[in-house]
Amino acid sequence: MDSTTSHPESAVQRAPDPRSPDRPPVVGMIGAGQLARMTTAAATELGIHLRVLAAAADESAAQVTADTIIGDFRCLEDLMSFAAGCDVVTFDHEHVPGPLIEALEAAGHSVRPGSQALGFTQDKRAMRERLNSLGYRCPRFAAVASMDEIVLFAGQVGWPLVLKSVSGGYDGRGVWVCAGPDEAADVLSHGLPLIAEQFVRFDRELAILVGRSPTGQGAAYPVVQTIQQDGICREVLAPAPGLPAGKAAEAQRLGLAVAASLGVTGLLAVELFDTPDGLLVNELAMRPHNSGHWTIEGAITSQFEQHLRAVLDLPLGSPALAARCAVMVNVLGGDDPDLRSKLIHVMAGDPAVKVHLYGKPVRPGRKVGHVTAFGRDFSQVRDRARRAASYLATGSEDAGDYR
Amino acid sequence: MDSTTSHPESAVQRAPDPRSPDRPPVVGMIGAGQLARMTTAAATELGIHLRVLAAAADESAAQVTADTIIGDFRCLEDLMSFAAGCDVVTFDHEHVPGPLIEALEAAGHSVRPGSQALGFTQDKRAMRERLNSLGYRCPRFAAVASMDEIVLFAGQVGWPLVLKSVSGGYDGRGVWVCAGPDEAADVLSHGLPLIAEQFVRFDRELAILVGRSPTGQGAAYPVVQTIQQDGICREVLAPAPGLPAGKAAEAQRLGLAVAASLGVTGLLAVELFDTPDGLLVNELAMRPHNSGHWTIEGAITSQFEQHLRAVLDLPLGSPALAARCAVMVNVLGGDDPDLRSKLIHVMAGDPAVKVHLYGKPVRPGRKVGHVTAFGRDFSQVRDRARRAASYLATGSEDAGDYR
Repeated sequence: MDSTTSHPESAVQRAPDPRSPDRPPVVGMIGAGQLARMTTAAATELGIHLRVLAAAADESAAQVTADTIIGDFRCLEDLMSFAAGCDVVTFDHEHVPGPLIEALEAAGHSVRPGSQALGFTQDKRAMRERLNSLGYRCPRFAAVASMDEIVLFAGQVGWPLVLKSVSGGYDGRGVWVCAGPDEAADVLSHGLPLIAEQFVRFDRELAILVGRSPTGQGAAYPVVQTIQQDGICREVLAPAPGLPAGKAAEAQRLGLAVAASLGVTGLLAVELFDTPDGLLVNELAMRPHNSGHWTIEGAITSQFEQHLRAVLDLPLGSPALAARCAVMVNVLGGDDPDLRSKLIHVMAGDPAVKVHLYGKPVRPGRKVGHVTAFGRDFSQVRDRARRAASYLATGSEDAGDYR
Repeated sequence: MDSTTSHPESAVQRAPDPRSPDRPPVVGMIGAGQLARMTTAAATELGIHLRVLAAAADESAAQVTADTIIGDFRCLEDLMSFAAGCDVVTFDHEHVPGPLIEALEAAGHSVRPGSQALGFTQDKRAMRERLNSLGYRCPRFAAVASMDEIVLFAGQVGWPLVLKSVSGGYDGRGVWVCAGPDEAADVLSHGLPLIAEQFVRFDRELAILVGRSPTGQGAAYPVVQTIQQDGICREVLAPAPGLPAGKAAEAQRLGLAVAASLGVTGLLAVELFDTPDGLLVNELAMRPHNSGHWTIEGAITSQFEQHLRAVLDLPLGSPALAARCAVMVNVLGGDDPDLRSKLIHVMAGDPAVKVHLYGKPVRPGRKVGHVTAFGRDFSQVRDRARRAASYLATGSEDAGDYR
């Protein structure tokens, strides 16, 4: 049997007729990774037409989105062609060059979040300066272009310190913890624009996710704890265990205030350091975020639905917990390319765990899926999620081996 | 702006490469209504490749399924072409002619449920005879082909009685409640093969939904109460309020036993009459069912995920409640074709209600969506779901008007 015998009509027009009286809203999402993939379910549910811009037809979201356009997000012609017929254009990543986003806006397209807000996710120096000027507490930082400047900054904050690429990093890429001047010199030699930051000795990392609509409605999810390793998110605990109510409310206020201050439309995730001296802002993302995957089952409104509501200026959904607690554990690729046979074991072992696979070929260290468990007891829920993710990733349920 | 400028590469091959080592399982679903549409989210989550057979590209599921094949489910050539490359073929409706399903099986395709089980959903007489022979309690019935036979049967069960088309009916079509011989004569004059059934004076209607896999694993959802009007399901209350534990367990055992007796693979929904003399089997469906839409938010495993797991012979997911209670209310089309502007009102009025729209043009009486609310208090949850569905359908929150 040959799977290439698909009837040619499978290629019929997939865009809604703009003349139809019941034409659905059309949201164009630039990028076709797992965030766009997980947005498809929310769009389908609400009768929203989702179009994705993919680099290739086998990308995660392209596999499952009827209206997939192949194109290059660094090419204005492709972006303009993609945006034609969309009611709003949004993003699955922050790598579209700022001038191209501005050009889309200048051509009359609704781009949410807009170029001005998005600029702060593409320029860490501008983000730090802006947040500082607005009074939000961040790690101490300095723009550095030479060893003299790095050494001067180290005199203020000590070693180790953190060097960050001003733009382009995520999942720990573009971030270097330098124990001393030699390591800093190595990083400097790459020739990238950098900022230096104080190495923060935090108690734990938290994240606050908020939705904000163009009319200014805001909704904050419960604060979560995130557990990173090598700069990559491994686990998310929702809500953050043992977080005092006052600090949780402070983080939610902070998320909503930053979103309003920067004019964010859509989702804003703020990664926070929880320190003995209070909360510090680490990173920002203006899209669905790994720290919010638990919301698919664990919250009344998933982050993907909330992002769609927000960019379309629809009333926001309830961000309240749907379960007492939820734990999300990422599945990072291991040596074995075969997830399928391991999935059967996980399904049989825990019929209540929710597995999400992204349709991406397994490569070591790559996020290929995630697992969410939810329930009443945090330690049981966490154990279940970790065992399932560990087994998918490594073929062993010993989560101690996995982390 | 013109939405027809979609890049031609949007038509690239959407079927997985059969030679790939990480090729996902391919499930082909015949039919592209809302059941297939709601199956897409579950398939995406588990990395299952879903292919649908649609009559037209604007059908509910065709709008959102990347691998949509246009064809006629009454044409063997179209079915064979559709099934090529599928690991398993299943259904969104029961209208595929039995001989064509047998031909697919004879050609070596895995069809689940199989032709033998499906036959019982296509022939109410065979279903009644088989269930009776297995000892399951049903309303009294008789095959009738003349007024003499109808009158003879009425002598046993009295008037009114129910005439049913042996095949092809759903949502109240093909079912006639006849007060006396004149009405029965009218129905008889249509020339359809009929059975006559006792008019059952039930306390309420219940439904039990079970999943069953080819290896014989079974999982029963909580028993629900369904509320019908004019033969169309309007509301589903999960779990059935006030149902004694013994009767709930009896219904679950019955569902699992019928599924095993008939060799069902996939989902089986059994509609039941709850009478002073016990439970009677009304109708069967072997697919995701309107009485199970509440499982999307209200159960740990949605019925759509469960159907995919079952037909692929994967371990079944937990059918347990994820909330204390859930209420689903169908949205039937009214006079106003515009659902969108009413959706905004519903979202603003209740940020926790879950709205599902099927992408179908509004026509009076047509199921165009559903609303689910969930929480702790049945009467509050039911009120919320009814108000939201009523507003979407009629523009009024007065659910009393809606029902």
